[in-house]
Amino acid sequence: MPRLRLALAQTNPIVGDLAGNAEQVLDAARAAAAAGADILVTGEMALSGYPIEDLASRPGFLAKCRDAVPTLAKRLQDAGLGDLVVIVGHPDGPFEPRLLGTSSAPTAIAQNCASVLQHGHTKARYAKHHLPNYSVFDEYRVFIPGDELLVLRLRGVDVAVIVCEDLWRDGGPLGRVLEADAGLLVVLNASPFERDKDEVRLPLVTRRAIETNTTVAYVNLVGGQDDLVFDGDSVVVDGTGDILARAPQFVEHVLVIDLDLEPANLGVELPDNVRRVTLTVPEHSGTRLDRDVATLPDDREQLWNALVLGLRDYVDKNGFSSVALGLSGGIDSAVCASLAADAIGADRVFGVSMPSRWSSDHSRSDADDTAERIGLHYSVEPIADLVLPIEHQLDLTGVAAENVQARVRGIILMALSNAHGHLVLTTGNKTELSVGYSTMYGDSVGGFAPLKDVPKLLVWDLARWRNEHAASLGETPPIPESSIAKPPSAELRPGQTDQDSLPPYEVLDGILDAYITNALGREDVAALGFDEETVDFVVGLVDRSEWKRRQGAIGPKISGMAFGRDRRLPITYRPSH
Amino acid sequence: MPRLRLALAQTNPIVGDLAGNAEQVLDAARAAAAAGADILVTGEMALSGYPIEDLASRPGFLAKCRDAVPTLAKRLQDAGLGDLVVIVGHPDGPFEPRLLGTSSAPTAIAQNCASVLQHGHTKARYAKHHLPNYSVFDEYRVFIPGDELLVLRLRGVDVAVIVCEDLWRDGGPLGRVLEADAGLLVVLNASPFERDKDEVRLPLVTRRAIETNTTVAYVNLVGGQDDLVFDGDSVVVDGTGDILARAPQFVEHVLVIDLDLEPANLGVELPDNVRRVTLTVPEHSGTRLDRDVATLPDDREQLWNALVLGLRDYVDKNGFSSVALGLSGGIDSAVCASLAADAIGADRVFGVSMPSRWSSDHSRSDADDTAERIGLHYSVEPIADLVLPIEHQLDLTGVAAENVQARVRGIILMALSNAHGHLVLTTGNKTELSVGYSTMYGDSVGGFAPLKDVPKLLVWDLARWRNEHAASLGETPPIPESSIAKPPSAELRPGQTDQDSLPPYEVLDGILDAYITNALGREDVAALGFDEETVDFVVGLVDRSEWKRRQGAIGPKISGMAFGRDRRLPITYRPSH
Repeated sequence: MPRLRLALAQTNPIVGDLAGNAEQVLDAARAAAAAGADILVTGEMALSGYPIEDLASRPGFLAKCRDAVPTLAKRLQDAGLGDLVVIVGHPDGPFEPRLLGTSSAPTAIAQNCASVLQHGHTKARYAKHHLPNYSVFDEYRVFIPGDELLVLRLRGVDVAVIVCEDLWRDGGPLGRVLEADAGLLVVLNASPFERDKDEVRLPLVTRRAIETNTTVAYVNLVGGQDDLVFDGDSVVVDGTGDILARAPQFVEHVLVIDLDLEPANLGVELPDNVRRVTLTVPEHSGTRLDRDVATLPDDREQLWNALVLGLRDYVDKNGFSSVALGLSGGIDSAVCASLAADAIGADRVFGVSMPSRWSSDHSRSDADDTAERIGLHYSVEPIADLVLPIEHQLDLTGVAAENVQARVRGIILMALSNAHGHLVLTTGNKTELSVGYSTMYGDSVGGFAPLKDVPKLLVWDLARWRNEHAASLGETPPIPESSIAKPPSAELRPGQTDQDSLPPYEVLDGILDAYITNALGREDVAALGFDEETVDFVVGLVDRSEWKRRQGAIGPKISGMAFGRDRRLPITYRPSH
Repeated sequence: MPRLRLALAQTNPIVGDLAGNAEQVLDAARAAAAAGADILVTGEMALSGYPIEDLASRPGFLAKCRDAVPTLAKRLQDAGLGDLVVIVGHPDGPFEPRLLGTSSAPTAIAQNCASVLQHGHTKARYAKHHLPNYSVFDEYRVFIPGDELLVLRLRGVDVAVIVCEDLWRDGGPLGRVLEADAGLLVVLNASPFERDKDEVRLPLVTRRAIETNTTVAYVNLVGGQDDLVFDGDSVVVDGTGDILARAPQFVEHVLVIDLDLEPANLGVELPDNVRRVTLTVPEHSGTRLDRDVATLPDDREQLWNALVLGLRDYVDKNGFSSVALGLSGGIDSAVCASLAADAIGADRVFGVSMPSRWSSDHSRSDADDTAERIGLHYSVEPIADLVLPIEHQLDLTGVAAENVQARVRGIILMALSNAHGHLVLTTGNKTELSVGYSTMYGDSVGGFAPLKDVPKLLVWDLARWRNEHAASLGETPPIPESSIAKPPSAELRPGQTDQDSLPPYEVLDGILDAYITNALGREDVAALGFDEETVDFVVGLVDRSEWKRRQGAIGPKISGMAFGRDRRLPITYRPSH
């Protein structure tokens, strides 16, 4: 059987940074060539970053992306890497707007492509057929679907090339891969992390490999891009469903593997719309590489890593030198501070305690303790003298007065941001955000919300995991035990707790999971056994909070249904009962 | 020639309010029947409101919409309106998720339908074929396309029924209308207002009427729904391109017209996938109705009306009793106050002047003058004593100190909102928003931004128009001349003007129009004759302000490219040069 040495480049591009992203591919190509690889495959759109959203409708942007491909080919050749076959993902265009026909989008002028580079030239190009337009994806809005399949013949093996969604759909390119009898199927992906996605993605790859009796090499991007976190986890599965190689999650990596593949069946006629390109690669000698199969850590560690990477990349890719956040002594801000320190180092994290008249002693001491455990920059700014003049002048009482406290804290954080260039982190969690339990322009200020997609019960879980993890490494647990143990409170009035206004978190998170993540109707949520009045109360809060969420910071998505791109609902909405 | 009396119901639904929206259709049906109409046609999704966004993915919501159709049929019958043929738009579902096939969206479980009701029953249903997925539209995300054409035979005339986008595409249903030789084509629409859209929409309707040699009746919704404003402007055009009837813009209306139509060609065989349903309508006697053709007002009046309606419906549909806004004495807040008074009455508008140390005498007097001219509720809350303690405690200077003033004003407005239930209006204009020239959580606070899509030069134009309009009616011009005439300033430091930080507005708005509305690249903007450094400066500001815009209030769209649904760009983006 012919052997191909395949390298999968799990790169972390920045959207728009064509030169920097090309440099990442070059680095991966150097590593691949040094390891004796014949082919290097990147993730989807590795050259432009993903998703590019409506940048795909800008002719100037597309022209730059198109030019970047031959430039990369030439740089590979100039770097002495010309023999290596590099398959790189990128947008292509501008094309004539897609015209008419059923369900066409007249504005699309781009295609989502994979180009095959060798010896300083572009040898072939494949355009993605299936354009996902659900959940976080809007590809049908901006891309024109391709209709040709590409097969590369290398060392006697037929290698089919497809992009991401093409793998997920029955029929289409996959059917033709079967007919073309390819020995290897490479798939370029930009597949964002979500909890338990490995329980969907790997079985799919495995099923496709078995169905087509073909080795499937699945390459994914890695890194944070706004509210998406790409987790890498690139994998190679053979036609029996055996995992031959797997890259680690959440880090840039070049995975190299030797594949003994079925030679091309020379008797098979090419189906319509399949283009075959024959490439010559030099023979290598040397021993067969061992399998390199990374194992996934447990659920909580995966989630923690996703949040850390999402935060780090938002800060670094947007050019912030530091972050600032309020430390209340509570669990949410302690977990955010710990995430931030893990993401960018404690020396780039600035915590501010902002006690009010109603702040308890334990709040102050827990905030101090958090700062000390993590080793971040810390300051204390009491707010009582700033709040009172406002309360008095406006003669405020009740919620209107309570919110002034949160808003003065917002002013302090934003002033420190203006003065020192910090990115302000919003410390609220998904549960609060779901029901609108926060003060607009108060605790909701900030550009990035690390816990935006983390429900309260999971915040506690992650805090416990992070502390256990520290303990297992002999390090100081970053989160004070009392921040984990005490009943949550906004402390905007004496003796307040969250449960004055909200059902117990066990109930609340259960209802929210059903209503938001699983998109059940009110009746179906109640049918799960929750009290009907409580369901009505919670659903009412969620429906009325849409306008607040629209004005909030973005944050990393970790669930199947996150606020933001995933769940798009009207603000003006009067439910019918 | 057979004569049909046709009624077009330009209703203003609230998304989700099935009972209230059905009531609007019933009211229109009563009016239509009283006028002797044979058929009543509503706008697209008149029963559910439009757009319903991801509500279309909720089985429970769809089931309620489905049930609302026979309920409406029965109510029409019970009201003695059973003879009237009512064609009503609504979502239908849940269906099995659309499966596979090219570019399919596995999550769609709904169709965008028009149902034909008569004598208490649903006689026929049409599902929209062409699902727009560009600009503000996301229909391909949530709907399954239909594939059958519907022709109703009434009084010997064939009446074809299609929905909105079906009219805009060559091929598809339109081609089959030609083959079916229909005498009348009715089109249910939800077509949002944008500037100069009448220059696109009417010519299209006219072209289709002439091409198919068929009378076309185009019915549009009216009203504000979040950032969209539907303008009505329903119209009937005959096969020679003659306008037979036209409804007024921006108001609910039932337009009734007599149409003498070609009888069905009995020799024509029905093409595949065309369903014909024969309905009997009673004969009417009586004289032929006169033409009823509304004329459109000029551009500025149309824009003003669009902004007023968008604001009114956001306030009323979301159940706010009043609005609050800061009155700085400047042009933007004066125009917002005037729009608000026109939308909901001055007695529901609360203006607050919040002078600082740096506020000029004319700012205070112009704010007073605005309040008096409009007759709104007015209060003055000086901010100096609230700002100083914050500045001193945090030792702030420069921009960090300047922004505290804007943020204390934000606190005041939000405190009044919390205390009295006002919706806070954000007074910033599109130019400011484009370049990020505002203070986050300061002047940007608020739930609705009336001028979000109005560039600065147009704000001045509209102010002048509104004053002239008042003068022509013998009323007090609402906007002080000095607010229009003086150089704009944020007044956050002594002697500040906008032009300390920004190019002259004539240049700035020109560049923004090219870069944002026309989506030109940097080079193409410069090629229009703008100074290259200025273009780079402005483009850089726009690109870096994406995160601010994501956290801002929604506001009515009036241009071809508004921030919000129209223009979807990454925050994390490093342009390549």
